[in-house]
Amino acid sequence: MSYFERHIFFCLNQRDNGNDSCAPHGAQAGFDHCKSRVKALGLAGVGGVRVNKAGCLDRCAGGPVAVVYPDATWYSYVDASDIDEIVEKHLQHGEIVERLVLPDNVGR
Amino acid sequence: MSYFERHIFFCLNQRDNGNDSCAPHGAQAGFDHCKSRVKALGLAGVGGVRVNKAGCLDRCAGGPVAVVYPDATWYSYVDASDIDEIVEKHLQHGEIVERLVLPDNVGR
Repeated sequence: MSYFERHIFFCLNQRDNGNDSCAPHGAQAGFDHCKSRVKALGLAGVGGVRVNKAGCLDRCAGGPVAVVYPDATWYSYVDASDIDEIVEKHLQHGEIVERLVLPDNVGR
Repeated sequence: MSYFERHIFFCLNQRDNGNDSCAPHGAQAGFDHCKSRVKALGLAGVGGVRVNKAGCLDRCAGGPVAVVYPDATWYSYVDASDIDEIVEKHLQHGEIVERLVLPDNVGR
């Protein structure tokens, strides 16, 4: 049993060396929206869902990215409606949102 | 297949409201040591191990804490030798370090 049934980590990394990173692509807004929706749906907490901030997840080319564990499902999202779909399908019901899954060959 | 075989997240949260958090208990040093050992052992990278910064993991009472996914194994560590054991047993060989496992009833 996982302490959290599903634990999603959002990369919020901001690179200052000129290289691209998730922060300039709406990562904080995605995290905030996810956190708020998970709370509103009553999913948050032990045995439920945890929405977490993370540093660089090292898949910057697909940013902004988030990963759901223990499923190990990686997502690339664009806007709040993508987050809604991840929350309502995957975090709430365990269904992977295939259209947002990050291809395996997308790395740094 | 998980993109990273094992993905460890260290809580580096610093609370400024007077409540306790992981940062004042050596979390950054634990993260730095883990990252350095994983690199030195050649474990880092796709298909291998990723050592990640995280925000509050919400199990502050057991801090400093880290979680290994997709295994969903939670650890409370004290010093560099604890980190060495997590790296050499769990991250490298997949063996849980039972003496450092955070009990299920330890939360915020």
